Amino acid sequence: MVQKPSIPKGTRDFGPVETARRNYIFSTIREVFGLYGFSPIETPSIENLSTLMGKYGEEGDKLLFKILNSGEWLKDLEGESFTASDSAKLTSKVSEKGLRYDLTVPFARFVVQHRNDLTLPFKRYQIQPVWRADRPQKGRYREFYQCDADIVGSDSLVNEIELIQMIDSVFEKLGIRVVIKLNNRKVLAGIAEIIGEPERLTDITVAIDKIDKIGIENVKVDLAQRGLSQEAIEKLVPVLDIKGTPEERLNQLKSLLSNSETGLLGIAELETLISATTQLETKAEIDLDVSLARGLNYYTGTILEVKALDVEIGSISGGGRYDNLTGVFGMPGLSGVGISFGADRIYDVLTALNLFPDTVTSAPSVMFSNFGEKEAIAAMRMLKELRSEGIPCEIYPDAAKMKKQMTYANSRCIPFVALVGEEEMAKGMMTLKDMTEGTQTLVTPEEAVKIIKRK
Amino acid sequence: MVQKPSIPKGTRDFGPVETARRNYIFSTIREVFGLYGFSPIETPSIENLSTLMGKYGEEGDKLLFKILNSGEWLKDLEGESFTASDSAKLTSKVSEKGLRYDLTVPFARFVVQHRNDLTLPFKRYQIQPVWRADRPQKGRYREFYQCDADIVGSDSLVNEIELIQMIDSVFEKLGIRVVIKLNNRKVLAGIAEIIGEPERLTDITVAIDKIDKIGIENVKVDLAQRGLSQEAIEKLVPVLDIKGTPEERLNQLKSLLSNSETGLLGIAELETLISATTQLETKAEIDLDVSLARGLNYYTGTILEVKALDVEIGSISGGGRYDNLTGVFGMPGLSGVGISFGADRIYDVLTALNLFPDTVTSAPSVMFSNFGEKEAIAAMRMLKELRSEGIPCEIYPDAAKMKKQMTYANSRCIPFVALVGEEEMAKGMMTLKDMTEGTQTLVTPEEAVKIIKRK
Repeated sequence: MVQKPSIPKGTRDFGPVETARRNYIFSTIREVFGLYGFSPIETPSIENLSTLMGKYGEEGDKLLFKILNSGEWLKDLEGESFTASDSAKLTSKVSEKGLRYDLTVPFARFVVQHRNDLTLPFKRYQIQPVWRADRPQKGRYREFYQCDADIVGSDSLVNEIELIQMIDSVFEKLGIRVVIKLNNRKVLAGIAEIIGEPERLTDITVAIDKIDKIGIENVKVDLAQRGLSQEAIEKLVPVLDIKGTPEERLNQLKSLLSNSETGLLGIAELETLISATTQLETKAEIDLDVSLARGLNYYTGTILEVKALDVEIGSISGGGRYDNLTGVFGMPGLSGVGISFGADRIYDVLTALNLFPDTVTSAPSVMFSNFGEKEAIAAMRMLKELRSEGIPCEIYPDAAKMKKQMTYANSRCIPFVALVGEEEMAKGMMTLKDMTEGTQTLVTPEEAVKIIKRK
Repeated sequence: MVQKPSIPKGTRDFGPVETARRNYIFSTIREVFGLYGFSPIETPSIENLSTLMGKYGEEGDKLLFKILNSGEWLKDLEGESFTASDSAKLTSKVSEKGLRYDLTVPFARFVVQHRNDLTLPFKRYQIQPVWRADRPQKGRYREFYQCDADIVGSDSLVNEIELIQMIDSVFEKLGIRVVIKLNNRKVLAGIAEIIGEPERLTDITVAIDKIDKIGIENVKVDLAQRGLSQEAIEKLVPVLDIKGTPEERLNQLKSLLSNSETGLLGIAELETLISATTQLETKAEIDLDVSLARGLNYYTGTILEVKALDVEIGSISGGGRYDNLTGVFGMPGLSGVGISFGADRIYDVLTALNLFPDTVTSAPSVMFSNFGEKEAIAAMRMLKELRSEGIPCEIYPDAAKMKKQMTYANSRCIPFVALVGEEEMAKGMMTLKDMTEGTQTLVTPEEAVKIIKRK
């Protein structure tokens, strides 16, 4: 039976070029994580549903990919009478496991499960795929990578400073100009206090989080619909409308929030971060953004988000401080702070700005053409020398017509072709053809190494 | 609600040390794949069940992890009457997708799906996890990595020679002494011919594949039970019992198989490989093993398997040539050859032989201790210098008691601790403490870089 092959909606095949480019992003991020002393961990793709359910809200529960129990999965449905609409209710009878939805909940589970083996503060990074049964659409996939670094077990702002430097370093290495937007959940709490609605922090943050997308007038309508008084809304507007340099705005905020202890604490934290990034000569633009809330309710201190300056696209990195991530797994009071890089969006930014280096390629540097059995063995001896010098190279496997071999080298964009015919073989040399220049020279393997490395 | 965290049976968490060690194995393999001109690709973890089912035998179908359809997954079961024993039959009504079971079938699907974008011969490697709902047991997991390299679209033995060199190179880099066992499916076919049972090739190979485990006498019993005549069995025994160097055994085989054209073709292929590996000075021991069959029926030419010489463990790498992998997806006649490395077993071998280099660590080279806010900023300036020289380093985030900071450094096995107190800060220097030697020196950041790199 012949099948027309396809892959599920929202998933992707990555060919050689895409994979090499993605690996370039991952290894840049991994290198920076390592330079800052973060250790890699990996958790299983499959977690117990009891670990995942209830952690991402009702909507999240629906978006979890659930794995059908092995063997007689129908056994707990026997004798049940049901309709299609009972699906959600009966899921737990046929499925005990699901695919990882993010890296944060598995990390929290990991920390609690291995608490006796970990030294705190614990700095981990994790670069692994996650799965969400979202409706597939442009830029949204059902399988995608997350690249997370977190520190748990330390309240110090030094962690935030290091994380900001890491973001700065990753985007400097990638050549992407960015602005790092900072806010603090305590400032948001302070604002809720001074407008007289301390209990409505969630409503307020969810609404003002949308200010960039829908504008301040629509945010006002939204807040009114959420039941905020007109008085509170009018008090809120000037806070969202402060202008000037980050330092000037911090000063304005300080007087606006002078009656809120929490708010002032948040401002002091922001001042520390902004001052440190200046002293450490952070390359990225640092901005204060009081409207930044990052939807997620578990943040309790610093919130940050990164935008590319030269491409119109959503945030490409973000993070913040949270106080009680591990509580649900029985380990309360452990503070943490972390950042996450969005590899897919970073890929799109690098593509749009044409920033992938030419050296990021899936092709070898040299292809040796194949003139027959004896010549091939001689070529393979030379290939061995080149490889021992770290030069990726290959031999065309068949003694095909030269035109076919050259077409192959061209279609893979291989920069050099080496010819080892009878004459070269006798001399222990090769004719090295520079495919971009069109030149060719008779060289020893050692000379070839130099020429190729120079290029 | 507090949950006691756990992970599903047969899955694993990898902590910092294990992950660093696993990454060392993967990057060694990846480096060699790249040096030989193989390009990385990645396929989705989730494939359509129509792609996966029927490819791994009846047992394999059962071992596929199946994903419950999203939303109203019960809708096609409404009105059905069933018992638990109908589970297998009804799976397709609640599940359309499954997790990847190996990398070979997805690769075949990839080649056919993207046939118009690929230049043949196509050399790809793929290092990704696969999932099998196997009964978990020692050394067998439900999620594990495969590391595959394949060439499709070339019949040349040059491919086999390069693959053998790759195996040799990987294990040389890892420091594992191995024997590479070679056989050829055509030799097995020749044997089936000359013992008068050409139609029983599968029975014969399945039986003699077990010779190492159960011994020749039990293989004889097994063959008799499979209905092979006593005459055929008696003819088979001397073939399995040939002795001498690989070259001597090839010569004996040649006369034993002199009446089988196919058999002689297989011997000629083996001779080419053995001669080439000698000429190319392969480090690994190369052995001929006529009993090697590797169970898989899709092999049609070369078969190879790698065993560690210094540890008692199953094969740590293997592969072979197949003729019609893509046929089931509508692209017949495409020949391929490939190898696969077993990362988990390689990990066990490296552990058993204590072969992981000391440099394979998840810990940074230096920890700066933290004496307070001002000192921390000064330290972070120095950290920046060290990192720009590629030295992984970190600062203890809190200005905790020195003993606590030192305990942390020790428990992470960090080799250097740097102290930047008031005095050092004034001089722009640090006191660098060598944690293994116990010595300490006052040095500039540049001097520190040299000392750390020397170590």
